[in-house]
Amino acid sequence: MREGAEDRVTGTSSEISPASYGPRVVIAGGGFAGLAAARALARAAVDVTLLDRRNYHLFQPLLYQVATGGLSPADISAPLRAVLRRQHNVRVLLATVVDIDPQKRQVILEDGRMPYDVLVLATGVGHHYFAHPEWERRAPGLKTIEDATEIRGRILRAFENAERAADGTERQALLTFVVIGAGPTGVELAGAVGELARFTLRRDFRAVDPRAARIVLIEGADRVLPSYRSELSEAARSSLARLGVEVSTDTRVEAIDERRVTLRTPAGVSEIEAATVLWAAGVKGSRLGAVLARRTGAELDGHGRVKVANDCSLPGHEEIFVVGDLAYFATADDEGLPGIAPVAMQQGRFVGKLIRDRLAGRRTRGFRYRNRGSLAVIGRAAAVADLGALRFTGYAAWILWLFIHIMYLVGFANRVLVLIQWAHGYLTRGRGARLITGRPAGMGEGADD
Amino acid sequence: MREGAEDRVTGTSSEISPASYGPRVVIAGGGFAGLAAARALARAAVDVTLLDRRNYHLFQPLLYQVATGGLSPADISAPLRAVLRRQHNVRVLLATVVDIDPQKRQVILEDGRMPYDVLVLATGVGHHYFAHPEWERRAPGLKTIEDATEIRGRILRAFENAERAADGTERQALLTFVVIGAGPTGVELAGAVGELARFTLRRDFRAVDPRAARIVLIEGADRVLPSYRSELSEAARSSLARLGVEVSTDTRVEAIDERRVTLRTPAGVSEIEAATVLWAAGVKGSRLGAVLARRTGAELDGHGRVKVANDCSLPGHEEIFVVGDLAYFATADDEGLPGIAPVAMQQGRFVGKLIRDRLAGRRTRGFRYRNRGSLAVIGRAAAVADLGALRFTGYAAWILWLFIHIMYLVGFANRVLVLIQWAHGYLTRGRGARLITGRPAGMGEGADD
Repeated sequence: MREGAEDRVTGTSSEISPASYGPRVVIAGGGFAGLAAARALARAAVDVTLLDRRNYHLFQPLLYQVATGGLSPADISAPLRAVLRRQHNVRVLLATVVDIDPQKRQVILEDGRMPYDVLVLATGVGHHYFAHPEWERRAPGLKTIEDATEIRGRILRAFENAERAADGTERQALLTFVVIGAGPTGVELAGAVGELARFTLRRDFRAVDPRAARIVLIEGADRVLPSYRSELSEAARSSLARLGVEVSTDTRVEAIDERRVTLRTPAGVSEIEAATVLWAAGVKGSRLGAVLARRTGAELDGHGRVKVANDCSLPGHEEIFVVGDLAYFATADDEGLPGIAPVAMQQGRFVGKLIRDRLAGRRTRGFRYRNRGSLAVIGRAAAVADLGALRFTGYAAWILWLFIHIMYLVGFANRVLVLIQWAHGYLTRGRGARLITGRPAGMGEGADD
Repeated sequence: MREGAEDRVTGTSSEISPASYGPRVVIAGGGFAGLAAARALARAAVDVTLLDRRNYHLFQPLLYQVATGGLSPADISAPLRAVLRRQHNVRVLLATVVDIDPQKRQVILEDGRMPYDVLVLATGVGHHYFAHPEWERRAPGLKTIEDATEIRGRILRAFENAERAADGTERQALLTFVVIGAGPTGVELAGAVGELARFTLRRDFRAVDPRAARIVLIEGADRVLPSYRSELSEAARSSLARLGVEVSTDTRVEAIDERRVTLRTPAGVSEIEAATVLWAAGVKGSRLGAVLARRTGAELDGHGRVKVANDCSLPGHEEIFVVGDLAYFATADDEGLPGIAPVAMQQGRFVGKLIRDRLAGRRTRGFRYRNRGSLAVIGRAAAVADLGALRFTGYAAWILWLFIHIMYLVGFANRVLVLIQWAHGYLTRGRGARLITGRPAGMGEGADD
């Protein structure tokens, strides 16, 4: 026991005791937004509790690299405790928030309650399958480490099964990969699968040629990266073509069954036989958004995001803030700010500072997003970048992308390791983290065979 | 399709076709022994098929580092296809061998059959809980990547739960770790948990002091590392003591229940309340050993290992070889050769060469193990080494251990990454791969929160 800490310690199954001093700030979620809020409170006279049901901060923009064997989970994760070790007014607790009691000002955990003076909700978004939740099993999305290792296993297993396939039709279905949704995640994922097939695995098989793999990227809008400017969509499309990715725009998914994906284009309905289907099409606010709506009457947008006031607070609840992907922050075009890391980090930092200012009795202002540009990467040395006045594509954009992503990775070891993995991958086109993990079928208890 | 390969391609659910030339060598298992056998056949006029139910070779001696957050799974794994890419007479198939038909000379897969002219069994060993298979759930062993990430999650979750524990008794049970078995794996694991608690996590918690963790290493024999010379056991014991590991020798486990471990020592029976119990006490031959015994009358030793002739073949079946941990190779002391990587590699290489020699009509000799020494590591800069004439301990042994282990890691990227992780860990005592993975309890479908 550390001295003096006992009075702040709390029950796992009873009420979690109040902080020992100052207003109690509870932050739910240790992603970009929650972590930025916690850090912005470093020198404030508050007692911060950061709740997350994971023990690590995840650098989601590189998750597609884990899903395609380029990086290991730990390379893009940093233990929350280690990140916040030196910030003595923060305690980190591994806990799942299941409900909120805004009258009593308590968050309700699976195994206890915790009072707050200020609540910052930053629990992000999950996958959204619109009217087809049954598609999830067949077409997993990419939000967590477990999603990424699952997708990695599916992609690699498809090639393994193709090597052993009995006939050509089956083999072609095994070598067909459909990625649904051509936003940044879908584009990056399709590009990385293209690279894997064309370069990394090229000489690894005896019966199949991985370059024969068909990768189809489906998009409902009329171009890839629809939220970017159209020149960049064009550049992305040609980079994808160089990696052998077929792009099908103006295309909607009608059905996904065990063997095929049914598509509707302006030209009619078509089918693709594909063993592997990946979902990058829709997100919806995490469950706590709906909880908040029920408990406070908060308004949600069509994606389950919580509509916030211009200081990121919940209208009518100046003690509750919603930041990051879970927040719908109004914009002129009604789309709301995009669900990207820079918005989340800026909102988190803003709310941290606002809490500090309020405690100090200083005047506060509304949140303003400073758009520093958009980036997406396609394959190993191609990317598109939109920095407002500057827009560029290809190798220069890729170097910029690499630099920015590595700069923002939390933790020194990660940065060096990721850089080495990248340098090695760039030189050899190798992807070292190509593991199919999880209990294989037919594995007995106890003994390996 | 690669040209000319089709005739060697095989059904997933029908008979797998014979090789296109020369004797068909089927190797089951891509560990140290199987991989060494495949490589030794590189220039032989044989058609080698390497079957493994994993798609990677695992460097098991470093698995305890994954279990304690020091390394990532991919750091100690190499995709089998990548390792054997340039060896054109080998094909790698992801498959599970369920049975053997020695009359027809076929291995039976979950989904097909495959004929062999020569069979090399190298499927290793699994955990063995003696008369208590029910202990496995409570006290997992360390043989696979999944085992390692499971153990990592248990250790880290114990500290997380301790931070939130309601009372001191519960907290102390959560901070108690029992490691059963003080062979190299148990010693390394206990030492690494000691380091994690004493150094890595030291400042990470607010309510608990991880240095208060109790780590107990249980051994039935009268000293740790009973297969090593006694001076080295002494050195290991004092290194463990410096890391705060309590060693209890001459101690047997009587019972393991949800809360406690019951121990019997010459002094009587005692109990330890411990949330985390790890098993490093017993192994037994993988299921294929028993299959072979049933199908051929092969003799097994008390640990389910297959007794082999002095050329590693199965007596009465000169076309079947058993190598690595699964083989019982008789020694003067009746213990058999130890289940360590050097024995496995030497046997694999020996059998590969023997097959080549037989094909060439050359005379063959029996296998002789060249003991180049034993090593075990205790914590971050201490190890014990027994190189026959030379025996040393402490820092020098640790450097030697590090050098040998990294030298034997397959794949350039792994080596560099592991070296950097180690250098970083050595300087900072950090362990970057401290992730609790797997679906957390209470996680909803679709949306994250």
